[in-house]
Amino acid sequence: MTQQYSRRNLDFMLKEVLQIAELTKYPFFQDYTPDMFDMVLDTSEEIAEKILRNAYSDADRNQPQLVNGQVKVHPAVKDYIKAMGDAGMIGATFSYENGGQQLPTMVEAATEMIRGAANNAFVMFTGLTAGSANLIFTFGSAELKEKFASRMITGEWTGSMCLTEPQAGSSLSDVITTAKPQSDGTFKIKGQKVFISAGDHDIADNIIHLVLARIEGAPLGTKGISLFVVPKFREENGSFTVDNDVISTGIYHKMGQKATPAMHLTFGDKDNTIGYLVGEANKGLNYMFQLMNEARLGVGMGGTYIASAAYYASLEYAKERPQGRKLKNKNLEEEQTYIINHPDVKRMLLFQKAVVEGSLGLLLECYHWQDMIHALGKTSEESKPYQLMLDLMTTVAKTYPAEMGIKAVNEGLQVFGGYGYTEDFPLEQMARDVRIMSIYEGTTGIHSLNLLGRGITMNNGKAPQLLFNEITQTIQQANTYDDLKPYAEKLEKELGRLQKVTMYLLSNAAKGDNEVFLADANLYMEFFGIVSVAWVWLKQGIVAKKALITQNHEGSELAFYESKIHTMKFFYHYELIKTLTLATRLTDPTLLTVDSEKQQVFQ
Amino acid sequence: MTQQYSRRNLDFMLKEVLQIAELTKYPFFQDYTPDMFDMVLDTSEEIAEKILRNAYSDADRNQPQLVNGQVKVHPAVKDYIKAMGDAGMIGATFSYENGGQQLPTMVEAATEMIRGAANNAFVMFTGLTAGSANLIFTFGSAELKEKFASRMITGEWTGSMCLTEPQAGSSLSDVITTAKPQSDGTFKIKGQKVFISAGDHDIADNIIHLVLARIEGAPLGTKGISLFVVPKFREENGSFTVDNDVISTGIYHKMGQKATPAMHLTFGDKDNTIGYLVGEANKGLNYMFQLMNEARLGVGMGGTYIASAAYYASLEYAKERPQGRKLKNKNLEEEQTYIINHPDVKRMLLFQKAVVEGSLGLLLECYHWQDMIHALGKTSEESKPYQLMLDLMTTVAKTYPAEMGIKAVNEGLQVFGGYGYTEDFPLEQMARDVRIMSIYEGTTGIHSLNLLGRGITMNNGKAPQLLFNEITQTIQQANTYDDLKPYAEKLEKELGRLQKVTMYLLSNAAKGDNEVFLADANLYMEFFGIVSVAWVWLKQGIVAKKALITQNHEGSELAFYESKIHTMKFFYHYELIKTLTLATRLTDPTLLTVDSEKQQVFQ
Repeated sequence: MTQQYSRRNLDFMLKEVLQIAELTKYPFFQDYTPDMFDMVLDTSEEIAEKILRNAYSDADRNQPQLVNGQVKVHPAVKDYIKAMGDAGMIGATFSYENGGQQLPTMVEAATEMIRGAANNAFVMFTGLTAGSANLIFTFGSAELKEKFASRMITGEWTGSMCLTEPQAGSSLSDVITTAKPQSDGTFKIKGQKVFISAGDHDIADNIIHLVLARIEGAPLGTKGISLFVVPKFREENGSFTVDNDVISTGIYHKMGQKATPAMHLTFGDKDNTIGYLVGEANKGLNYMFQLMNEARLGVGMGGTYIASAAYYASLEYAKERPQGRKLKNKNLEEEQTYIINHPDVKRMLLFQKAVVEGSLGLLLECYHWQDMIHALGKTSEESKPYQLMLDLMTTVAKTYPAEMGIKAVNEGLQVFGGYGYTEDFPLEQMARDVRIMSIYEGTTGIHSLNLLGRGITMNNGKAPQLLFNEITQTIQQANTYDDLKPYAEKLEKELGRLQKVTMYLLSNAAKGDNEVFLADANLYMEFFGIVSVAWVWLKQGIVAKKALITQNHEGSELAFYESKIHTMKFFYHYELIKTLTLATRLTDPTLLTVDSEKQQVFQ
Repeated sequence: MTQQYSRRNLDFMLKEVLQIAELTKYPFFQDYTPDMFDMVLDTSEEIAEKILRNAYSDADRNQPQLVNGQVKVHPAVKDYIKAMGDAGMIGATFSYENGGQQLPTMVEAATEMIRGAANNAFVMFTGLTAGSANLIFTFGSAELKEKFASRMITGEWTGSMCLTEPQAGSSLSDVITTAKPQSDGTFKIKGQKVFISAGDHDIADNIIHLVLARIEGAPLGTKGISLFVVPKFREENGSFTVDNDVISTGIYHKMGQKATPAMHLTFGDKDNTIGYLVGEANKGLNYMFQLMNEARLGVGMGGTYIASAAYYASLEYAKERPQGRKLKNKNLEEEQTYIINHPDVKRMLLFQKAVVEGSLGLLLECYHWQDMIHALGKTSEESKPYQLMLDLMTTVAKTYPAEMGIKAVNEGLQVFGGYGYTEDFPLEQMARDVRIMSIYEGTTGIHSLNLLGRGITMNNGKAPQLLFNEITQTIQQANTYDDLKPYAEKLEKELGRLQKVTMYLLSNAAKGDNEVFLADANLYMEFFGIVSVAWVWLKQGIVAKKALITQNHEGSELAFYESKIHTMKFFYHYELIKTLTLATRLTDPTLLTVDSEKQQVFQ
């Protein structure tokens, strides 16, 4: 069976690089011992093997259909959600109080890597359900928690996030769905929501929509948005059987990730949709950010785990496919060599590996910060640096894995040649599936504006300062190993270059022209992502180096650590150097996208 | 109706940049006046409007099926081929002697741009038919020409090229299909061919396969390959009705370009497939190179015209889709602005435009060289420089538009946000369609080996020397305009950098290690492509600048020329600078893909 992820690498990341054993010293995680995490991963492997893998291509070829107002999804989705609910995996990272198991989010991410590599579309259902439930647990009333959230984490019901409207995609300021207060404290909801993933299906008795809407008379813009729980079926006499007038108006047929229905939903067409306010009025978008940020890291994971599955599939193919002869040996009497022996194929494979393990490293840093916040307490002073870094890097850890995941899967397909373009191999589906990642939860363009326009500058630049300190510490550590010193020096140089470019851009901002300042934010994001991933690669390199020095490894363990260092080097020699071009453009004063308001540039 | 290509730009390229009127001074083209070319383009526009566009998405959603050994394709394919045959367009570039119209290949390429932008999959049928017929006309006997080729250019029959076998994709040395001589001078053919585009269908009475096979006892490798005409139905008593034992064993279901069936064909399963030798035995691959090279430029065109259709679709969307507000104006009381007003969207649009018009420019240079060879005579001394440049650049003009076309369509999809991922807009299909271009007719990896390993070095580097002279002339011309001088200087610097990198790599070759020499050939190709396209952009810039200086243009004409110069600048400021990173890697002696034969690098 084709490998889809590296369990050894997950262990390396959790135990060796991020030292998860340290986490268990904090009271919040004290009930865990590291071997318990192994069991959690084992459970995910079982679910992936028994349910997710088998349905991957079948669910793509038999996509959900909207029939008589009801969406029917692939039957294996139900098996998956049941298995996840039974295993207590849906809300596993939640506090005991909220029905969770206080599992580190790092471990949850590792399980997602395993499940998502097998079937990225199905994982959406549980991810959205957990995120929606968590939103209710964090900001909702006791009643909402008990009635809705507690039934979501068991897998009995699922959840969805309803933000986007036809006229308000990237611009949430322009949400116009309305909420009309009723005398009983509930609200009547009316409006259209589009692209609602898992917004309808036939595998659970109820769907709990988390809906952004405006209460009548609320201020314009994001300050007038409130958050509502809107079930598909509402309660009457203790049972949730009353049709809540949430209509499945349409289903989008998509390029990929077909097994997750993306819905156009209409609320209140018959003026009969009841919603329940979460928390305070007009604070809805602030609340929603919790779910959005979780979902953003989830999208980064999506880029990573699809790229992981593509990497191992193309690696297997490269090892088994004979084609051509080595350039040193053109003897036609000899049999053809395997394509893995061609340097260009090795380059494509190493690129994929560098992207997958680099992206995972970056994401796990974020999850580690999240765990430190859980460990130290969200309101404590000690957790603030982690919160700042997490806020800054969520946007990068969403975007780099998404953009580079798309490129990596593309290279995986290329390894297969013509076969990669056919349905005989999974690569064409993976390429279609992964393409959404740079669009989901804010496009790359939006996140880039976010990073440069907000992340870098907020709190007087405290967040990037904290991150750069972390990077500098890694550089100092690496400098103590002769082999790693050249890479530490490279990273130091690039970090300096990034800081210089940042200063240059901020000097533009100081001139007051935000459009000029942010014109190439997308390229700044690319630069920032590359340097960040170079950092996590150096961290991995240090741990691998230490392991090789301190122990006498053999066989697969020796190969694992050597491969780590080799791939780290590959990243530095092939990827990190992209900063040269990016820095050149970012400090080039010639404006070509801002200067002309004239649309006739486009002929 | 959404624009899919720019007729104005085709006119600009043919008439102003490549001065097609000059061609008509040569006897071969003397029957043409420039306005006749306009009529040819008009005819293509009509075919595109009436047949191709309408069937584009329908033929994707109703892909060919293999039923009882016979492939059924979309019925509009038949209309298309009939229209092309009736208009005399299939073999239009052939000599009068071969039933053609001696149309310049530049003009044929322009018509292909029009047709392909409307429906890239259908265009494959006529392209392959023309190429196969041309192969017979060039190398076949009078009998083969009359019996087969003459019926192909009318559209009565179609053609296919049968090279690839399950064990021989990129490695044609390993073709094992056999040809057994019969007493009547024909051959019995036996073997498997895979990925045969348009290899079976139900829209013509016969399909003429051009098949590579080995005559018993032939030498190993490419020197033992012969070329055969193998019809689906062979002749008996003057009519072609005898089943020639060519079996449609399977049809590949593909990610995109679904309307063109890719076939697995079995020849001689019942030992009853008759083939007719083309030209001399064992020279088949040499012959086939004519068709392969034509097809390679066709694939480059494929990347270009799909990217063109994607560019105009995303441009239209960007002009009509309101979302967000300008960064200078966050007044929520005002209506949202169109996304074309966001700098990052302009960047994505300019990128697409720069790729489309740059790729087209590069391809038309190649077609112009082809036309000069036709004009001067293939065997004349004067045509040799054109032949050398054409041989060198075919591989680049295939690869740059393929690779960059994929990226450009990807950006087009991104402009649409979530809508781009749905079947409601054509971008998702275009993204699937264009993905094959870096694989068709030799993968990017193969072409890169070809460029660096053969193109650069053959004839003591005569070909790159000729090309570099052309580039230098363009630089000198550009230097005479103040506005263009900075760009001339940039190109001069980059040409110098390319030459330096080339020398560095050749010094590796001189050390005798071909694997080291060619390890990063792929990146060399990217470098070479960027500099080549910078050259054709500067040429276009010069012509636009001249037009602006010499005439007092207004309105759309003024906008057209200004847009040309703006897009040229964009290419230089955003794309040409990628050479910095590429040169760094290409001159970095650290080997990471060659050094280890060990496969355990990949964990």
